[in-house]
Amino acid sequence: MSTQDFRSERIGFLQQSEIRAMTRECNRLGGINLGQGVCPLPSPPELLEAAAQAVREDLSTYSRFDGVDELRHAVARKLKRYNKIDVDPETELVTTIGSAGAFICALQGLFNPGDEIIVFEPFYGYHVNAIRVAGCVPKVITMKAPDWSFDPEDLERLRTDRTRAVLVNTPGNPSGKVFSRDELGVIADFCKTHDLLGITDEIYEYLVYDGQEHVSLATLPGMFERTITMSGFSKTFAITGWRLGYVAAPAHLAGPMGLVNDLFYICAPTPLQHGLARALEVIGDDYFDDIRKKYKANRDLFCDALVQAGLTPHVPEGSYYILTDVSRFRLNDARASAMHILEKAGVASVAGSAFFATDGGRNLVRFCVAQPREVVEQAAERIQVFR
Amino acid sequence: MSTQDFRSERIGFLQQSEIRAMTRECNRLGGINLGQGVCPLPSPPELLEAAAQAVREDLSTYSRFDGVDELRHAVARKLKRYNKIDVDPETELVTTIGSAGAFICALQGLFNPGDEIIVFEPFYGYHVNAIRVAGCVPKVITMKAPDWSFDPEDLERLRTDRTRAVLVNTPGNPSGKVFSRDELGVIADFCKTHDLLGITDEIYEYLVYDGQEHVSLATLPGMFERTITMSGFSKTFAITGWRLGYVAAPAHLAGPMGLVNDLFYICAPTPLQHGLARALEVIGDDYFDDIRKKYKANRDLFCDALVQAGLTPHVPEGSYYILTDVSRFRLNDARASAMHILEKAGVASVAGSAFFATDGGRNLVRFCVAQPREVVEQAAERIQVFR
Ligand SMILES: Cc1ncc(COP(=O)(O)O)c(C=O)c1O
Ligand SMILES: Cc1ncc(COP(=O)(O)O)c(C=O)c1O
Repeated sequence: MSTQDFRSERIGFLQQSEIRAMTRECNRLGGINLGQGVCPLPSPPELLEAAAQAVREDLSTYSRFDGVDELRHAVARKLKRYNKIDVDPETELVTTIGSAGAFICALQGLFNPGDEIIVFEPFYGYHVNAIRVAGCVPKVITMKAPDWSFDPEDLERLRTDRTRAVLVNTPGNPSGKVFSRDELGVIADFCKTHDLLGITDEIYEYLVYDGQEHVSLATLPGMFERTITMSGFSKTFAITGWRLGYVAAPAHLAGPMGLVNDLFYICAPTPLQHGLARALEVIGDDYFDDIRKKYKANRDLFCDALVQAGLTPHVPEGSYYILTDVSRFRLNDARASAMHILEKAGVASVAGSAFFATDGGRNLVRFCVAQPREVVEQAAERIQVFR
Repeated sequence: MSTQDFRSERIGFLQQSEIRAMTRECNRLGGINLGQGVCPLPSPPELLEAAAQAVREDLSTYSRFDGVDELRHAVARKLKRYNKIDVDPETELVTTIGSAGAFICALQGLFNPGDEIIVFEPFYGYHVNAIRVAGCVPKVITMKAPDWSFDPEDLERLRTDRTRAVLVNTPGNPSGKVFSRDELGVIADFCKTHDLLGITDEIYEYLVYDGQEHVSLATLPGMFERTITMSGFSKTFAITGWRLGYVAAPAHLAGPMGLVNDLFYICAPTPLQHGLARALEVIGDDYFDDIRKKYKANRDLFCDALVQAGLTPHVPEGSYYILTDVSRFRLNDARASAMHILEKAGVASVAGSAFFATDGGRNLVRFCVAQPREVVEQAAERIQVFR
């Protein structure tokens, strides 16, 4: 054994995320970056002011591992109002380092190596990687374009003695799929029948279009007691770098997750917690309506541009990603296709293969339209080189 | 299997930290809390202003997984100046969610279940817990009071085929021990002879008293290439809640740690990263001299008060904790002793047993004097009830 060999087996498979690599390439070529979902949009001024004020007030010490009272209570009110989930902010809510942190707490606190978690494909790559780093096994159920529907029998087919949970991401990254109440009902029944947990990542919960309704899995009959609801504020308020998220779950599940949160994270950044808590009191529904409108306009603009350019977008029902069929380039390789688009049009995207275990992504790329209008307009124009 | 059984085996042993429990008890009884090291002292105004400004500037998006350029470069300069460690901020430095996050990245990225890590007792409880949650095995070498010296032969005695690293915490929590260059030399030789990693937690690096010198393990001959240096700004700037730390290591070790950081944390809070980077440019050595003087004064004041009260402090050479022998109470139980002190004197401490695997802590409690002068004075007065 030499010092050269220090790399744990649990991360043996991990590589620098392809999204980050594309960002570097894009910077090198001076492209417009519709790759990573960094969300460089203006955050609500009330939020910035409240957080700046909390920083100035020197609210700087560790908070409780589960977050400051004001934030937990504000999030509980939000969960009740928007998600229709009733939680006790003292025992059923943990403030986390983003929804990413929430998922790590769930995996490390509730699952053992070998446990299987069913994941819908196309999936968010971090989900699958985090599952594998925890020693658990992602079992992939494929959703079929164009509406990303799934066959309930596939759930049964994937199930084994080691199945412990089903992971849902609605609205979804990268598909934009918004799971309907009926679809969630199928998943809920499956979980209840086989005593599985439901895990739901609802970070795009406010971004649903075309009259779609965001439904939280935990609100389905009998599901609260077995559901881990993860969300956060990164996307809603365009504060991806603040690292503020939460996980809501019944106390017997929130407890172990809180222990992991304490040990791995200690707490979420406290001045930002205070700022967010104060801002949640004053930011009204008009804000959410407004961003929904803006993102929808971006989606429509860019989808139209793609169609004009002869590419085929899967128009998303939610979130701010646009999976796009690029088989027209006949490259049969998503990375080569993304690179082709970057080189020819100067627009960066993410290779669809990053979201698939199967080869279903080889003719797809993902564009992220969480960008100021002008940027999306410029990208829409550039993409016309393929016309 | 019922939903009641969801708690992973890896955290089976974990409990709510005793420190947190003591804090709750202290609040209930209206005591002065010298328990948890929350550090509720004023942070440098330049830092608060710079961070508030960065928040207002909406520097809100995800940063690179290893942190914003300005901070990595500022930390590299600080490492060179203060620690005498030369690092390449592009490949040998990862900005983390506190030093706590740095240690998680090291454990998850570099070690496998069953790997053994040698830890000096008394130890910081989070270290041992994090090691165990990663499936690794803490092997405890005991330091002997009053100077917390260790027997180099104990290192050899503890070593097995599975030994992979030695963890040092200097200045130490809870002992306040500052490892001398000679002691670190012994550890360095041991690491080099047996091809082990050195891991060093230097979060109290600026708090050394009585002419002691802070020596970084990575500066010993041949050690940089096998040393993981963890530190952060929680204690130095009294911003425990900001969650800003870092890990420095050669690229072949920093790489895997960066992958874990990306997956578990995504990045450290970006507006606070920017604020810190800017403040590091303007905060001068006088600040560090000043806090060193203040903490030393608190230490002296409280140690004197303990002696007057008939208790026996282990006067720390560094950090801001005071392990205190309370065998006088004849309780032979650290928790009972801490509770006795809280009930009789209205001062909360932490049971020494939290820092020991052996029974060496049963007549010790730990006081934290990272408090405003008035608070320490008041606690010093209250403790005289034992006179
Ligand atoms: C589905 C999904 N979950 C979680 C995250 C990470 O969110 P957070 O910033 O809250 O950790 C992202 C970010 O892109 C995401 O797309
Ligand atoms: C020795 C030691 N390491 C790490 C930490 C945690 O530090 P951070 O806030 O940088 O995560 C503490 C906090 O008490 C500590 O005492």
